[in-house]
Amino acid sequence: MTAGVLVALCLGDNMYDLIIIGAGPAGITAAVYAARKRINTLVITKDIGGQAAWSGDIENYTGYQFVTGPDLVAKFEEHMRKYDIALKENEEVLEFKKTEDSISVKTNKNTYETRTLIIASGKRSRELGVPGENEFRNKGLTYCATCDGPLFSSKDVAVIGGGNSALDAAIQLMRIAKHVYVINITSSLNGDTVMLEKVEESKIVTVLNDTQVTKISGDRFVTGITIERQGKEEALSVQGVFVEIGLMPNSEFAKNLEKNQYGEIKVSRYNETNIPGVFAAGDVTDVPEKQIIIAAGEGSKAALGAFKYLAQHRF
Amino acid sequence: MTAGVLVALCLGDNMYDLIIIGAGPAGITAAVYAARKRINTLVITKDIGGQAAWSGDIENYTGYQFVTGPDLVAKFEEHMRKYDIALKENEEVLEFKKTEDSISVKTNKNTYETRTLIIASGKRSRELGVPGENEFRNKGLTYCATCDGPLFSSKDVAVIGGGNSALDAAIQLMRIAKHVYVINITSSLNGDTVMLEKVEESKIVTVLNDTQVTKISGDRFVTGITIERQGKEEALSVQGVFVEIGLMPNSEFAKNLEKNQYGEIKVSRYNETNIPGVFAAGDVTDVPEKQIIIAAGEGSKAALGAFKYLAQHRF
Repeated sequence: MTAGVLVALCLGDNMYDLIIIGAGPAGITAAVYAARKRINTLVITKDIGGQAAWSGDIENYTGYQFVTGPDLVAKFEEHMRKYDIALKENEEVLEFKKTEDSISVKTNKNTYETRTLIIASGKRSRELGVPGENEFRNKGLTYCATCDGPLFSSKDVAVIGGGNSALDAAIQLMRIAKHVYVINITSSLNGDTVMLEKVEESKIVTVLNDTQVTKISGDRFVTGITIERQGKEEALSVQGVFVEIGLMPNSEFAKNLEKNQYGEIKVSRYNETNIPGVFAAGDVTDVPEKQIIIAAGEGSKAALGAFKYLAQHRF
Repeated sequence: MTAGVLVALCLGDNMYDLIIIGAGPAGITAAVYAARKRINTLVITKDIGGQAAWSGDIENYTGYQFVTGPDLVAKFEEHMRKYDIALKENEEVLEFKKTEDSISVKTNKNTYETRTLIIASGKRSRELGVPGENEFRNKGLTYCATCDGPLFSSKDVAVIGGGNSALDAAIQLMRIAKHVYVINITSSLNGDTVMLEKVEESKIVTVLNDTQVTKISGDRFVTGITIERQGKEEALSVQGVFVEIGLMPNSEFAKNLEKNQYGEIKVSRYNETNIPGVFAAGDVTDVPEKQIIIAAGEGSKAALGAFKYLAQHRF
């Protein structure tokens, strides 16, 4: 019996060459690339599709002129399932530990061993936490101006937030919408000067400082919001609400990885983290933009990085 | 008359916010993103699709389980043409120059002015550099199995190369040709396991490792090649030669940009080059892997980078 067989017997079916955490665009693309390299791969994920599954209409995934988030995610899932990839759904990674030549991944259900790891656990939107938010999600309320802005042509919309991502959303929307309200909880907007100026100069943008949103209203779709300022509540008629109060990376479980001030996992251009053999890809990382096509590309790079790492090491 | 109108009149229709050079996966994705941001964009390109148009079967563009290169390119093109983007085809960029707040792009037909530039000019096939190569180009010798493979039905052909693109060519040709020789200069083929297996399982493919081509022979068309192995020259009778020995970046016109040892344009993770306002994306850059899905993601990042640059500057 060789040492390799012995190790395999002792570790049973739980030793993988690669574990991918997450099955959004980055994780699924990494899985497809890994499968085509015949890497023995396990995907562990809470859900399929991640943020992409939440998108309404997607018009910027090259090759699909128009596709809904759920439809694109269905195509991604089908693509992944074409290959013989082990998949654990509804399972959450709690922590992982690197030992000398293996990485131990502990979930809420099991513990797995792997040679390499790709973290593609994505982000989640920071929520407003007001009545109506859950009810009108994707029914006029969205967390992504880049994705969904073009759908609000000639409509009145509100951007909730006062930082750069709110300004970015307002600048995008002022070319599309009829009127843009920026609802900012602090006493002034806080962002890049040129962006601030553009927003302030626009005739179709109204900035409401010291103002907070207390309720989202509508019937089938959003018809308005309730705002509170100077102690008084007011109704504002809008057909679109863009919540831009930040995103939270799903990186809490990755305790030993270097992160930036936003909690995003720092990666090299090769998608390496600070722990050798541990890669990260997509929205959970500090990649400059959060887009489906970018996350997919990053997933591919991470899988090819893991493949090279496996090829260059003897276990 | 304001200064802005005067400038616009003087510069006429040739002043753009963004010029994109190239219309492969990176350039097309950049164009789609730019169009959706309402950036006044011009795409200048020699052809549509770039190297992707030359690919055979594509199984790793996430969302498409199986698509041919030409079919995927057709979808990309259709996606781009959906938007009102200025497009100059069959036009080649000769050089560009940055002045204080504008970039002048000179082609073989015209000169254009732009605020920002994205170079997505891709790569082209590397040449063998042996006697007979120029003489029999398009007379039995080709750099594109997808385009020309079907012409070699029931013929004996040679694929020159040992990487993924050589494997792709061999896989395409083994469905068409009578016999396929793979002439590989190194000691073993190097590519995706799935592709390696397909080539190795085929009864009509002969792989010759540690072998190089020294001459292409023929009369009106190719009739054979001379190969050298173990110090001896041999004649091999083939009617088709497919050169798949790698790619060269189309970066010669970008004289002022920093490049790596392979001539690839160096980019930051934000797709910036060393000249502010000039971005680059896809296979022409030093991005670690050359894949359609990665190039598309890079194109998106570059367009969003150009958008931010425009937002942060006043012209």
